[in-house]
Amino acid sequence: MGRKKMILDLDTGIDDALAIAYALASTEIDLIGIVGSYGNLQMLAGVQNSLNLLNLLGESNIPVYLGEKHSITTQSFDTLEISQEIHGMNGLGDIKIPKSSRPYASESGIDFIIDSAHEFQSDLIIVPTGPLTNLSLAIKKDPKIETLIGKVVLMGGALTIPGNVTAVAEANINQDPEAANEVFQSKLPITMVGLDVTLKTLLTKKETELWREIDSPSSRAFADIVDYYINAYANLKTNLDGCALHDPLAVAVAIDASLVTTLPINMKVDTEAPFSGRTIGDETRLNSNQATTVVAVAVETERFLSTFMTRLSTLFSKN
Amino acid sequence: MGRKKMILDLDTGIDDALAIAYALASTEIDLIGIVGSYGNLQMLAGVQNSLNLLNLLGESNIPVYLGEKHSITTQSFDTLEISQEIHGMNGLGDIKIPKSSRPYASESGIDFIIDSAHEFQSDLIIVPTGPLTNLSLAIKKDPKIETLIGKVVLMGGALTIPGNVTAVAEANINQDPEAANEVFQSKLPITMVGLDVTLKTLLTKKETELWREIDSPSSRAFADIVDYYINAYANLKTNLDGCALHDPLAVAVAIDASLVTTLPINMKVDTEAPFSGRTIGDETRLNSNQATTVVAVAVETERFLSTFMTRLSTLFSKN
Repeated sequence: MGRKKMILDLDTGIDDALAIAYALASTEIDLIGIVGSYGNLQMLAGVQNSLNLLNLLGESNIPVYLGEKHSITTQSFDTLEISQEIHGMNGLGDIKIPKSSRPYASESGIDFIIDSAHEFQSDLIIVPTGPLTNLSLAIKKDPKIETLIGKVVLMGGALTIPGNVTAVAEANINQDPEAANEVFQSKLPITMVGLDVTLKTLLTKKETELWREIDSPSSRAFADIVDYYINAYANLKTNLDGCALHDPLAVAVAIDASLVTTLPINMKVDTEAPFSGRTIGDETRLNSNQATTVVAVAVETERFLSTFMTRLSTLFSKN
Repeated sequence: MGRKKMILDLDTGIDDALAIAYALASTEIDLIGIVGSYGNLQMLAGVQNSLNLLNLLGESNIPVYLGEKHSITTQSFDTLEISQEIHGMNGLGDIKIPKSSRPYASESGIDFIIDSAHEFQSDLIIVPTGPLTNLSLAIKKDPKIETLIGKVVLMGGALTIPGNVTAVAEANINQDPEAANEVFQSKLPITMVGLDVTLKTLLTKKETELWREIDSPSSRAFADIVDYYINAYANLKTNLDGCALHDPLAVAVAIDASLVTTLPINMKVDTEAPFSGRTIGDETRLNSNQATTVVAVAVETERFLSTFMTRLSTLFSKN
């Protein structure tokens, strides 16, 4: 059996950057491509961030694809002020990293997802850490891929705790509730890694200080970027001690499902105000025999954090 | 070690009647009293139902106490039309059962809870299957009982699926969100048995037909009462095949916790529209070491149903 193939579908802000690093540092999977999404910032700016980060981390072959620029129900997308506060104007804490000279791929991100599903089938893992727009359009264009793809491990939603945009809505799902609902109502085998667990995996300046000691270009850049994120969290006056490792946790769970305890449950996304963006069990499929989704409701925080630090520190030491 | 002592805190409608029967039929516990609440019907009418049901089931010693007549934020209570549709005008499917000549107890239900907590301490199990008004007033009057009571196993709330009164609120919690929030924020050790699991335990006319075959006064009455409930569920156009065994499941879980899989999580209840009545994880206590509440998220449906049928049929055969 070959290694699993992973596609990241990112709106490349700060924790997306950590997701890229985690995927590159993990020998269990091949990162075969990154698809761009909007959310923490505009799609095109996120694609450029992805190219720059791959370059910073010594990777010059993995293609980056363009995805959708806005939700399926809108014609344009304006970055929310809160996103800019958390991720900076450039999505990476306003830290400048060298610009990659590599262009983005000419194929569309949606076609790349479809083609990869047919090529790799159950060996394919898709990890969306932004809105579910690209994935919803891919299954609309080619519904067959719903039963081909090995698994979708997404960062988004909140089942057992309140949202972070409204009392019910988490930011990624909130960008495109209709697309998210289509994904959850599809046959795709989904693992939802939401705020329920990501708010339990916190990084502090103690850890970024360890990266500074490595003193490589990537370790210094990532320490600066993540410190911006930690400061932003402190300004938000959450009562969290550090910043949440949302997106890298999804990658880690995609590689090692045993990091989380999951609840099998068929999910839906509310699309009407005031509940729009809520991820909740679908009561009409409560007693159906099979659940297409499992939701992470507990996490082995310390094991994840130590794996995260070991892998990223090793990667940063080489670049 | 003696048997555990159980107090039921009921707004005695149809599934509350099944909860009384389940408790009487269970030799693992002593039912030491029933406290009346409002909800499915007015408090005093519910107390009379409890007295009549105990009498029907051959029990003439267990005291029934008066509880509060309305929520802690209101001055009166009007039974909702939907409650009357589901439970009938008399709370028991408009089926007439013989009136008990026994009076209710003179002590208040709240003082009975407090006195029992001091007397039985960790041997005391309280099972509220209506609003949490009585319990909230008991801990307000004597906060010491929060750490004395063995456990509270309540029927109410919905964590992983929508509510049944609004998109977020379950009926019992919705009657008095403020009281429910005080209970969840207290030190009481709570097991929440909500719609997440109770909508998975369904009774049909196949089962009530088996009761009819027993052909005793109690079996005939319960078959008639529950058939009304099953018809009401059918009229509600839920897609459920039968009626939900909300309240008896809470009693069953209080006796045998292994019937459900639980998630430890500190809970809160939203008290502001449009989210009022929502039971959800308290994000401010997400990373605290100890959770005071466990929420039932999965249930061994068949084992519960067969235990339920065996116990109630045996009880009905004798009365």
